[in-house]
Amino acid sequence: MTPDAATLTYDAARDRPAEECGVFGVRGADDAAVLTALGLHSLQHRGQEACGVVAHDGARFHIERHLGLVGDNFAGQGAAERLPGRTAIGHVRYSTQGAPVLRNVQPLYADVRGAGVAVAHNGNLTNARLLREELVSDGAIFQSTSDTEVILQLAARSARQKPTNRLIEALKQIEGAFALVALVNDKLIAARDPLGIRPLVMGDLDGATVFASETCALDMIGACFVREIEPGEAVIASADGLQSQRFAPVRASRPCAFEYIYFARPDSVIGGRSVYETRKNMGRILAHERPTPADVVVPVPDSGVPAALGYAEASGLPFEMGLIRGHFVGRTFIQPTQAMRDIGVRRKHSANAAALKGKRVLLIDDSIVRGTTSRKIVRMVRDAGAAEVHFRSACPPITHPDFYGIDMPLRSELIASSMDPAAIAETLEADSLAFLSLDGLYQAIAGEPRNPQNPQLADHYFTGEYPTRLMDHGLAQSDKERQLSLLVDA
Amino acid sequence: MTPDAATLTYDAARDRPAEECGVFGVRGADDAAVLTALGLHSLQHRGQEACGVVAHDGARFHIERHLGLVGDNFAGQGAAERLPGRTAIGHVRYSTQGAPVLRNVQPLYADVRGAGVAVAHNGNLTNARLLREELVSDGAIFQSTSDTEVILQLAARSARQKPTNRLIEALKQIEGAFALVALVNDKLIAARDPLGIRPLVMGDLDGATVFASETCALDMIGACFVREIEPGEAVIASADGLQSQRFAPVRASRPCAFEYIYFARPDSVIGGRSVYETRKNMGRILAHERPTPADVVVPVPDSGVPAALGYAEASGLPFEMGLIRGHFVGRTFIQPTQAMRDIGVRRKHSANAAALKGKRVLLIDDSIVRGTTSRKIVRMVRDAGAAEVHFRSACPPITHPDFYGIDMPLRSELIASSMDPAAIAETLEADSLAFLSLDGLYQAIAGEPRNPQNPQLADHYFTGEYPTRLMDHGLAQSDKERQLSLLVDA
Amino acid sequence: MTPDAATLTYDAARDRPAEECGVFGVRGADDAAVLTALGLHSLQHRGQEACGVVAHDGARFHIERHLGLVGDNFAGQGAAERLPGRTAIGHVRYSTQGAPVLRNVQPLYADVRGAGVAVAHNGNLTNARLLREELVSDGAIFQSTSDTEVILQLAARSARQKPTNRLIEALKQIEGAFALVALVNDKLIAARDPLGIRPLVMGDLDGATVFASETCALDMIGACFVREIEPGEAVIASADGLQSQRFAPVRASRPCAFEYIYFARPDSVIGGRSVYETRKNMGRILAHERPTPADVVVPVPDSGVPAALGYAEASGLPFEMGLIRGHFVGRTFIQPTQAMRDIGVRRKHSANAAALKGKRVLLIDDSIVRGTTSRKIVRMVRDAGAAEVHFRSACPPITHPDFYGIDMPLRSELIASSMDPAAIAETLEADSLAFLSLDGLYQAIAGEPRNPQNPQLADHYFTGEYPTRLMDHGLAQSDKERQLSLLVDA
Amino acid sequence: MTPDAATLTYDAARDRPAEECGVFGVRGADDAAVLTALGLHSLQHRGQEACGVVAHDGARFHIERHLGLVGDNFAGQGAAERLPGRTAIGHVRYSTQGAPVLRNVQPLYADVRGAGVAVAHNGNLTNARLLREELVSDGAIFQSTSDTEVILQLAARSARQKPTNRLIEALKQIEGAFALVALVNDKLIAARDPLGIRPLVMGDLDGATVFASETCALDMIGACFVREIEPGEAVIASADGLQSQRFAPVRASRPCAFEYIYFARPDSVIGGRSVYETRKNMGRILAHERPTPADVVVPVPDSGVPAALGYAEASGLPFEMGLIRGHFVGRTFIQPTQAMRDIGVRRKHSANAAALKGKRVLLIDDSIVRGTTSRKIVRMVRDAGAAEVHFRSACPPITHPDFYGIDMPLRSELIASSMDPAAIAETLEADSLAFLSLDGLYQAIAGEPRNPQNPQLADHYFTGEYPTRLMDHGLAQSDKERQLSLLVDA
Repeated sequence: MTPDAATLTYDAARDRPAEECGVFGVRGADDAAVLTALGLHSLQHRGQEACGVVAHDGARFHIERHLGLVGDNFAGQGAAERLPGRTAIGHVRYSTQGAPVLRNVQPLYADVRGAGVAVAHNGNLTNARLLREELVSDGAIFQSTSDTEVILQLAARSARQKPTNRLIEALKQIEGAFALVALVNDKLIAARDPLGIRPLVMGDLDGATVFASETCALDMIGACFVREIEPGEAVIASADGLQSQRFAPVRASRPCAFEYIYFARPDSVIGGRSVYETRKNMGRILAHERPTPADVVVPVPDSGVPAALGYAEASGLPFEMGLIRGHFVGRTFIQPTQAMRDIGVRRKHSANAAALKGKRVLLIDDSIVRGTTSRKIVRMVRDAGAAEVHFRSACPPITHPDFYGIDMPLRSELIASSMDPAAIAETLEADSLAFLSLDGLYQAIAGEPRNPQNPQLADHYFTGEYPTRLMDHGLAQSDKERQLSLLVDA
Repeated sequence: MTPDAATLTYDAARDRPAEECGVFGVRGADDAAVLTALGLHSLQHRGQEACGVVAHDGARFHIERHLGLVGDNFAGQGAAERLPGRTAIGHVRYSTQGAPVLRNVQPLYADVRGAGVAVAHNGNLTNARLLREELVSDGAIFQSTSDTEVILQLAARSARQKPTNRLIEALKQIEGAFALVALVNDKLIAARDPLGIRPLVMGDLDGATVFASETCALDMIGACFVREIEPGEAVIASADGLQSQRFAPVRASRPCAFEYIYFARPDSVIGGRSVYETRKNMGRILAHERPTPADVVVPVPDSGVPAALGYAEASGLPFEMGLIRGHFVGRTFIQPTQAMRDIGVRRKHSANAAALKGKRVLLIDDSIVRGTTSRKIVRMVRDAGAAEVHFRSACPPITHPDFYGIDMPLRSELIASSMDPAAIAETLEADSLAFLSLDGLYQAIAGEPRNPQNPQLADHYFTGEYPTRLMDHGLAQSDKERQLSLLVDA
Repeated sequence: MTPDAATLTYDAARDRPAEECGVFGVRGADDAAVLTALGLHSLQHRGQEACGVVAHDGARFHIERHLGLVGDNFAGQGAAERLPGRTAIGHVRYSTQGAPVLRNVQPLYADVRGAGVAVAHNGNLTNARLLREELVSDGAIFQSTSDTEVILQLAARSARQKPTNRLIEALKQIEGAFALVALVNDKLIAARDPLGIRPLVMGDLDGATVFASETCALDMIGACFVREIEPGEAVIASADGLQSQRFAPVRASRPCAFEYIYFARPDSVIGGRSVYETRKNMGRILAHERPTPADVVVPVPDSGVPAALGYAEASGLPFEMGLIRGHFVGRTFIQPTQAMRDIGVRRKHSANAAALKGKRVLLIDDSIVRGTTSRKIVRMVRDAGAAEVHFRSACPPITHPDFYGIDMPLRSELIASSMDPAAIAETLEADSLAFLSLDGLYQAIAGEPRNPQNPQLADHYFTGEYPTRLMDHGLAQSDKERQLSLLVDA
Repeated sequence: MTPDAATLTYDAARDRPAEECGVFGVRGADDAAVLTALGLHSLQHRGQEACGVVAHDGARFHIERHLGLVGDNFAGQGAAERLPGRTAIGHVRYSTQGAPVLRNVQPLYADVRGAGVAVAHNGNLTNARLLREELVSDGAIFQSTSDTEVILQLAARSARQKPTNRLIEALKQIEGAFALVALVNDKLIAARDPLGIRPLVMGDLDGATVFASETCALDMIGACFVREIEPGEAVIASADGLQSQRFAPVRASRPCAFEYIYFARPDSVIGGRSVYETRKNMGRILAHERPTPADVVVPVPDSGVPAALGYAEASGLPFEMGLIRGHFVGRTFIQPTQAMRDIGVRRKHSANAAALKGKRVLLIDDSIVRGTTSRKIVRMVRDAGAAEVHFRSACPPITHPDFYGIDMPLRSELIASSMDPAAIAETLEADSLAFLSLDGLYQAIAGEPRNPQNPQLADHYFTGEYPTRLMDHGLAQSDKERQLSLLVDA
């Protein structure tokens, strides 16, 4: 997906950045497609718009892609029969460009010379558009507008003889952030971008090799964690065992800070750190950085809960579930119409007056993006009888958009890009507002302050320092739209 | 639904009693069907299997019933056009007999002499089968196997001239627990069983009358709470305003204890008491009744959270989210196949090792039914590294099934009906196990001990003292099945 | 269906009367539902809007009803498993009141005291509305607006002990035209109205009993023709063999003339006469009654073909397929929107210029209803280069509507009710126009002139002499609509 | 489609060769997609398995492709809005390889350098596989297994600057039979293979340019016939008017004989000759070549009707509709399961005993392929009481398969490839059997005998003289299957 288009599809209703994708792959286990579906189910928080699975039965490929949730499409008994084989990969994704269309749903598959190749990736290529233009000039026909297909087309045109080498050669040409799983005939390949921006882990299930975006997917199927895929590394699982191949020089990884702040499941472990613990740390440090007289600490559920627990622990204030999250709302968000989203926005949370009435409420959310949802929540809490409402963000002010696979609004819509905390507090109608500091965030995640020469995280959201070149970024929006396809998706 | 059949369809995967229904009605507001859909959406926790709405446009009725969630079926813009009118009622329900079938989905509608009548009810009639047999002998043709239809057939055969009086006359003949909303032409009627076992409240939305199972549905649409419907009372909203009519003598209400323990949403208020607060009370009292050395208090989310917060507060132990609940699992449960349910059972929760490793864990759930899920959770917590696992139930041992609209297993499957706590602890592989006492439960809810002469709650789950006669209970299962219908549902 | 409502749903696009239904039943054969589907498939010309099958497996009933064609809904292998048993009945029907709705699709099923009863009928009851009103006043709840349900409700309320006797008692109370098949538990019953207006035959398939609207359904499954059901006779097939029971006095049958003219398949035999031969006779007699100088005889296909062959044979003129009927148009007609119907009307036939150019064309159709289609066809033939176009109707002028189950326009829309042949010719822009005489029709079908004291056919279309009372006919349209149901069908 | 695969999917149930496709295109008319749908509807006899339409709105393309009939997918009012624009092309096709899959349904669309290109073609390329292999070796990714995509890939890789020239260049490289319509941005192009094997005509609709497989599609929308596309000619309709371009040298056309015998609609005109008249000629000449004592001439409907009329006329024998074709059977054939096809086979025709009993029947069909259906029909006629059954084929013995887009069985399954007429008569259980002679066929179509040096028709079915090279034919079946795609279609 191209960066600017991404901004158009930011999930305004949720007012939360939306990760594009989760990936999963397994080789060497019976009913690989069912394991893949279970793994994807545990990664469903990374994308609810569409899902797909490709299985290889030893000789041929089987593919199934759907709009909608994994549980609704792959949970029945039929999946094993429809997608036979001991090797499979899968993908969940969040809606991106306009109406979600099936031809863009991953994994993408292509017959290339001497092999079938299927690819699923999480992230965003920052030179996909330039590569695409070169390929089209050279006679390539694209069947989708997904940047994943660029990888397939590059592999198809590679002069290398061995099919896996063609895929590796393609990886060398792309830039950006990506955590990728692929099938090249019966070989399963996992590859991670040169900086390790997007997460990707390897596991073992009774001898079968498993790859997944997060460790929670390993837990789901009972697989053991083995290690993370290294930045710039491709791991190839084949009949000959595991083989590691580098397609970029060795560098320290620079994982995306937002995985810790919001995206990853709290029970996942990224870079050796418990996501839950890093979030509690954010709350603890925030309590120390910004002590505030209050009667109760109330999280915006569910993502604000760990930070609020950390804050309550550090501050000694009581923790209360002053906001209730409807169990059945999740589904509503994935509906593409604005009308549906509006209902979703208003209906996701409800105030629990019993915990709020007459109290000075310290409200903690993981982050503030546009501020629209935060304003609604502040009002809801006040309407329920709170005496004061103090809003706290468990991460620093978000001032810059992402170009690595995360849906975010245009910079101009990021409330912290143009307002200081006092102005934001006024806009949110909160009695006070404060953010975790950047060093506080680093302390919470890495246990040390930010290294300005060599930042330990991808933190462009807060700093504007993008970890890679942004090749496609100069192309004007209108030009790009015209060129991607002349076909209007139904 | 008949009691024994109910036991067959208890949601074993969830190992939690399953409320059958939630009801909602509104009269005198534009787009009444959309308001009804929103209200039902907030009552979705009371039933996810099917939903239906009937609207009256001033002259005629419009009906739409679906298997599945409210948000998936009524959330679009089309609902207002498909179901026009300023008066509407709706219903959500949990699957009951075998495969869910559309002909049993409520509201049910019938043309009776001089009027259209639509009825939706939450609860269970304890003499429905006997009444049905009399009616069939007299030539009545039933189109469903729902006991709601008994009410319609009684109303159709009533000799009373005024259609609303025919419905009232029907209410006098039925026994059991019911919270009912009905349309009789453009009149909206709400009625509650003589003991007020099932909840039913009245609200006001800018002059429009609203009825709902819980106050959270009033909050959802911005309506004000007015009062509860009295036990044995019917309230009729018509062009002439509100009229209250009694169909049973005045008695003290005896609300179902399980609404407080598990069913109702924590932000609802029943009988003037915050459900959230009563649950925290259960935890607090449990901490006093059963002090236990431990390092962390961990709830089984989401229903165990308030009790765990209360326990942590009273005991001074830290509260941790040691179990994570998948956001997208809710959907899985409504799948009717056993295979789907098994996946649901295993996938609802995951352990958060960061909060459990090396700790003495005090695990709190709202209740223990069969113990199967509890055992899995104990094992999951131990596998994540907990040093000790102490299981606590925030309600007393459940020893008797319900016959008032709540799916529960047969008595023989209720683990506490045949085992003492020590044996249950062994079965659950927990280091210790304890229950809240019956008087503790009364204290938590009513602020006073149980009055044995006149219990303040329907508490047969724990005592076996059923608040009404059980007329149908003697009929043998096989006889009953044969007689309800010779038609096999597709 | 009530007579006036019928007129509203006359298939204007086809400008042809539309038979409402075909029925089929079989007892004592494996896969009875599959045989029933095949039988219904051969009766598909009698109704394409909806179809249904009910099977009895020896203990319980299985039902499946659909909008659409038999081949699209029951042709797969699954039908045998979904509808198990050795006894089944089925029904095809043409759309009648407004939008087709599933609750009106036959067979209808009801649990009555001590038995399950399923009924499918072809025809129309002329006192259904009066009976329905009595039943509703007495507390009956109707689940459909179909007059078939009146039969079920009467049976449910009968005081007779034996379930089959209750159905017989119901038959005694209804008036009009009906060919009915029913299941009463495992008994299969066929019954025909007291005048035998609608056709119904009995066949034998290796010992299994078969009933069907037409003999072509017997041919389809390889069953032998046994005999017609007598007017006023009910035949009951049970484990005890066949039993005949009269519910009305013995009278000469008076079959509907339009079955011979248009409805029945040409390869069917009704009342011992080949439908194909009677149609050729109509053409032969028309040639003698109305000799016309012409170069070619051209039928309006397919229904006009036999008459045109007879005319060509008798006149010695060459027969040519000057109009081609699209093979894939049939499907279009069943679409309920007017837009679809318009396309259907224009696209059903195309002119074959090679057979028409420069010729004096004698065009033969089975009948003329409103004349709208005829006018289009005349113009199409002329546009293709015909020198003259002479239009001939193989039946007499239609001046009166039907109330026995055939969709026809209001009397005022029947072109022959207000115009003489010369005026019709002018309207149709034909060079001449002529009809078969009434006695010619009788000669063609019965081989003898009409007996005015005791007409051998139901011929009210041409004479206005209705063979039964029309009890419901006096009720005003608006009253009737209001009373049938307050529920608007989605 | 590759020739051998074609043989696998020959419609055995129908025992009739199955044309693969019909094409239609229009430029310069409002609602071009609706006109296209109507045109395709009239070409539905050329393929009932799938259909597709691509429209160009002046700036972008809109595509919609479906399995099933045109009337079921494009007949509603929505088509104009979903597929806006004044230029459109469309396609109907018959099922070919295994299960029909959407990715093979035409038109195919591709974004090529500087243009969008959509192509729909009728026919078969005899060097598609060789070209495909070269393209894949060169890095092309195919999204389908359709040979139409070869044309797109060749155009994408052409070095020519002007997009239309790239398409022309692609046409120069392909061999075989094809009638093609294409869109290159807003230009509409029609092209016909160098020998004009498949038909393609041009029409005019109030100034708009129309292309279609047959003239009946022009009649359907009221367009005038202008001329046929010449063999080896491409006609480009653009804002600059019509431009003709040759991509192959001028040669006499050699149209497929089977279009006259069976495929084309009788009201179409091909090469200036009425299809209906040529078929009557076949019957007339057969009557002279093979005079036979009989009582009636009976066609196998519908395709045998014109020949039977010609035979009856020339022989003076009476013509009778002794076989009735079910109106609603057409639909059954398109079902892909064998079970459905079996039902179709048995149920397409029924015998009309009234026209057959005791008669010496001369049965005329357009052709005999495998003989299986013919045998069933002979038996059916005899079972209906015919005294003698004489079978006549209105074309010569079919001894060779087709490789130009017509599904036919393997040569070994063609009954006339291994048996003489006497043996076939015995197999068919006919009293006699005869074929039209090859010169008789030429007389009927061309009015002159076959010119052995330069045959006027593609007549390889009867002679084995294929009009083009068969480049792909040497490739072994198994090799080819493996290489086309490793993806198993769901």
